[in-house]
Amino acid sequence: MGRVTSRYRVVRMADGVATARPDSLAAEEPLEIRVAGRALTVTMRTPGNDFDLARGFLVSEGVVAADSPERVPITRPELAAIRYCAGATADGANSYNVLDVVLADGVPLPDVSVERNFYTTSSCGLCGKASLEAVRTISRWRVDRDPLRLNAATISSLPEKLRAAQRVFDRTGGLHAAALFDANGDLWCVREDVGRHNAVDKVVGWALDQRRLPLSGTTLMVSGRASFELVQKAVMAGIPALAAVSAPSSLAVDLAREMGLTLIGFVRGSSMNVYSAVERIPSGEPLPC
Amino acid sequence: MGRVTSRYRVVRMADGVATARPDSLAAEEPLEIRVAGRALTVTMRTPGNDFDLARGFLVSEGVVAADSPERVPITRPELAAIRYCAGATADGANSYNVLDVVLADGVPLPDVSVERNFYTTSSCGLCGKASLEAVRTISRWRVDRDPLRLNAATISSLPEKLRAAQRVFDRTGGLHAAALFDANGDLWCVREDVGRHNAVDKVVGWALDQRRLPLSGTTLMVSGRASFELVQKAVMAGIPALAAVSAPSSLAVDLAREMGLTLIGFVRGSSMNVYSAVERIPSGEPLPC
Repeated sequence: MGRVTSRYRVVRMADGVATARPDSLAAEEPLEIRVAGRALTVTMRTPGNDFDLARGFLVSEGVVAADSPERVPITRPELAAIRYCAGATADGANSYNVLDVVLADGVPLPDVSVERNFYTTSSCGLCGKASLEAVRTISRWRVDRDPLRLNAATISSLPEKLRAAQRVFDRTGGLHAAALFDANGDLWCVREDVGRHNAVDKVVGWALDQRRLPLSGTTLMVSGRASFELVQKAVMAGIPALAAVSAPSSLAVDLAREMGLTLIGFVRGSSMNVYSAVERIPSGEPLPC
Repeated sequence: MGRVTSRYRVVRMADGVATARPDSLAAEEPLEIRVAGRALTVTMRTPGNDFDLARGFLVSEGVVAADSPERVPITRPELAAIRYCAGATADGANSYNVLDVVLADGVPLPDVSVERNFYTTSSCGLCGKASLEAVRTISRWRVDRDPLRLNAATISSLPEKLRAAQRVFDRTGGLHAAALFDANGDLWCVREDVGRHNAVDKVVGWALDQRRLPLSGTTLMVSGRASFELVQKAVMAGIPALAAVSAPSSLAVDLAREMGLTLIGFVRGSSMNVYSAVERIPSGEPLPC
């Protein structure tokens, strides 16, 4: 956990009085993910769990664990190796900020063009609808068929469990978090990062490594808002429910409805908003008017 | 403002009682920015001020308003035209989600490779130091020489002014905001977006269009955290001070110190943390111990 936080000297000002003191900040450094030696992405992330971050990113992008005609669990490893690139620096040292992933024989290399983010297959001119369509096409799992049932009290307990598990936030106040819970509200995995998409990728990458994909019966809880991208990542990992402390975006709700994922926002105290697939929360069916 | 928010039916659950009601959500849709017909990036953004978003993105990336030997104000327009691509959809309609930018004669086309984000010029293996170095190399402005002076009371007034100017947040609770203030704390421009980097790009793009670059003497206030990327965007636009409601990351502080930008975090009530270039806030010099 050495590089997860860094100490800095800071000037604290309060009511006109300035005092110098040390402060812990969340570490942020670039990570380049290569596949077969070719750069696929550069992300600004908090160091730690980098292999999980790479695994999860590849799941989210559909490079591994993507569509198969059978939509069945993965039976063989699609990743042959992940390693930090030694010698990536001018002096031959290892910066631990460049990873190379080797795919198993027979797994196709990803497209590395800028337009690759689900839009290459679409002729629809990059409208929201094309984005939804593309996720549905490449996802291996059918989260709409997941038999998960949730009760409201369990959902209400998740933000506090997430917060309690955030080790770095306590020291820095500066990290997003994502955590995976089972239907009873038991915590499986929590990850923190300066980027909320990275926190989710680290959770999904952990699950891939643990051979737990698809993540049937689980709920992903995130500390901030729910964007299209986070719903997409949940779907690509087979997660049937996503809960957020804050608001979802329009396209997040559209994708959740299209895919049959239960999307819950504003989980605060004993209240919450359910935007899709409310039938998973039996007490959530509103009374007929 | 038609597509800035969307209405959705939502199930509100509180203390075990479920009620259906309408809710406003922040709109999120993909935007593809092309330069001379070639895709440079796809970003998920809240529609509105798209031309400013494209302008600001090009400033942030150093495509326009980047290094010149003289580091002088821009004297001629570097952007010849921006337009939505009609006919980008299969049926020939305009999705208003694809923009094409035409650069003026003599402005070099950007590199569109994945590694372009300041790392192509570096042989240092993508360490944090290379990131700092690269921003310093390509920035046209020297924010360390900016004579801005700020007083703590002015800084303390910014979050409330930002919040008061956020029109969409009130309806959705789901948007990041960025605003530009002068040294007296007067608001110049505020923009909201589902992505915080987009909100900043929209502010910078507005300033480019208004021929206000470099943004000497201004402070950029953001609603969330301060990442490396946001400090980079401020530097590329010549903004000498960045204030954030929440925490900065380590690399954000490193870059602010390297460039002489005043970085302020946790601006809450009458207190704040100053991480760099504290000499711009005369009352901020801590007493000698």
